[in-house]
Amino acid sequence: MQSKRTLGLAVAQMGPVHLADSRAAVVRRLLDMMRDAHGRGATFVVFPELALTTFFPRYWMDEAEAQERFFERSMPGPATQPLFDEAKRLGIGFYLGYAELTPEGQAFNTSILVGTDGAIVGKYRKIHLPGHSDHKPDAPFQHLEKKFFEVGDLGFRVFDTQDTRFGMCICNDRRWPETYRVMALQGAEVVVLGYNTPSRNIHWNEPAHLRTSTHLISLQANAYQNGIWVAAAAKCGSEDGHHMIGNSVIVAPTGEIVARALTEEDEVISVHADLTLGEHFRQHVFNFAKHRRPEHYRLITERVGVGDPLP
Amino acid sequence: MQSKRTLGLAVAQMGPVHLADSRAAVVRRLLDMMRDAHGRGATFVVFPELALTTFFPRYWMDEAEAQERFFERSMPGPATQPLFDEAKRLGIGFYLGYAELTPEGQAFNTSILVGTDGAIVGKYRKIHLPGHSDHKPDAPFQHLEKKFFEVGDLGFRVFDTQDTRFGMCICNDRRWPETYRVMALQGAEVVVLGYNTPSRNIHWNEPAHLRTSTHLISLQANAYQNGIWVAAAAKCGSEDGHHMIGNSVIVAPTGEIVARALTEEDEVISVHADLTLGEHFRQHVFNFAKHRRPEHYRLITERVGVGDPLP
Repeated sequence: MQSKRTLGLAVAQMGPVHLADSRAAVVRRLLDMMRDAHGRGATFVVFPELALTTFFPRYWMDEAEAQERFFERSMPGPATQPLFDEAKRLGIGFYLGYAELTPEGQAFNTSILVGTDGAIVGKYRKIHLPGHSDHKPDAPFQHLEKKFFEVGDLGFRVFDTQDTRFGMCICNDRRWPETYRVMALQGAEVVVLGYNTPSRNIHWNEPAHLRTSTHLISLQANAYQNGIWVAAAAKCGSEDGHHMIGNSVIVAPTGEIVARALTEEDEVISVHADLTLGEHFRQHVFNFAKHRRPEHYRLITERVGVGDPLP
Repeated sequence: MQSKRTLGLAVAQMGPVHLADSRAAVVRRLLDMMRDAHGRGATFVVFPELALTTFFPRYWMDEAEAQERFFERSMPGPATQPLFDEAKRLGIGFYLGYAELTPEGQAFNTSILVGTDGAIVGKYRKIHLPGHSDHKPDAPFQHLEKKFFEVGDLGFRVFDTQDTRFGMCICNDRRWPETYRVMALQGAEVVVLGYNTPSRNIHWNEPAHLRTSTHLISLQANAYQNGIWVAAAAKCGSEDGHHMIGNSVIVAPTGEIVARALTEEDEVISVHADLTLGEHFRQHVFNFAKHRRPEHYRLITERVGVGDPLP
């Protein structure tokens, strides 16, 4: 099908980043993949969550130490400037996840959207923080996102660049249908995200295959139910012995996986995404204006947790 | 895994019901499947949407004619009383979809939940009505749910029976994540539904395989994202030449399909559903009280259709 409007869309999955790896070494890997994506005709490339460092929330340490070792105080900064320069030179936009420390000392799990001119178009701060804030000495590793990060304060916004309306989210956000719906209600056409997902669940003996299957069905159903493209980039493989799932994918508004990473290493996948495809869904089965009934959805915003049945 | 609390859960898929088929003949088929389900140890069986008649919204006619031919003025009524009697005799509950005409003349696409004592425990009236209300003379068939039915006025409620909290929805509702979330926020453990889904989309040239794949990923992702069991019963096959999809399934809170119909005929599938399985999800990854952020979900209830980006 020849489309009226396409986006060259790539996902740059990353293999592990170990504690000993420098920012400079990581940025060189990202630059290599950015050039690879450009060579395939992509004008946008999605990098993972917390792409510049190892997934440090697995380690118990105090906030000051984490911030000193793993957070960015400016974006771009000295180590990341080459990404912005190369993006501008090639004319390719990107999504990048990193740990953000604000001048006021606030800490967020953040992503940015960068245009083909190398300028930051939008910022998102992770809202659905998983894990815990206390030390779990009996767990094989920690998941301290609730300790190291504040809940994002920027909402689920959308950003226009390359004649395309983008939404962003991060990792665990992708399992919550509210994430996509709020952005689709603002006309999002493509939702991009990065993730670091441990292969093992520290809370219960979850069969390992579910870590991947639940990741995939969440992306597929939410792409379909909103008539949007979804592109998701893993950081995966074994970081200093701690294994994380791969399966970076690009999902069409049909809910179909149209590109999928096969390794647990640095790997680029790409498609020429037909942005008009989602319109069939948004005009008919998911014509929100015609079919949605918010008067029956009130509990979604009136309640946080589970409560009594409606009378 | 030996579970603490299980539900013998069956789905009774139906092959076609033609215009010429009598209510009595249909009820005999339902009774056969109810006994089959009981014989497998099920104490609850899910029948399809509009189970008592052909899927009449495909035919253009006036409301009075439709109501005369296809609607129930009482439930149970003379033709359906045997279902209630047999349910009580066997000690098996059921979900049944039918076209409801109220004493006041209101018309709904309705389902009921019946207990093991043969008494009606709950009622649901379809909220997400698909299709159109005008005559489309160029379409191969009509989809007149917006003509023949009013939007349901009972909300998405939950009902306790057999030590289990049930939610109900109907057909197109299953593609809307709001449906499941509103019931999960009331503690639903099992969501049951029936559907009639034409194999062909009259609005655009949708590839036929998507009619099934989007059905399945919607059920799977929403079961997982709410930590609930979902059981879905099709009326399928070719009704007087109009083909509808099958693929009735039972989906676990893991998002996995654990039972699936293989035919497009009357067919019973069943599982012993471990109701404690969903608790792992509801206590950890989908602990709503801990992780949901309704302050960022407001557009879901403030907007019906797509609007401007948030500032």
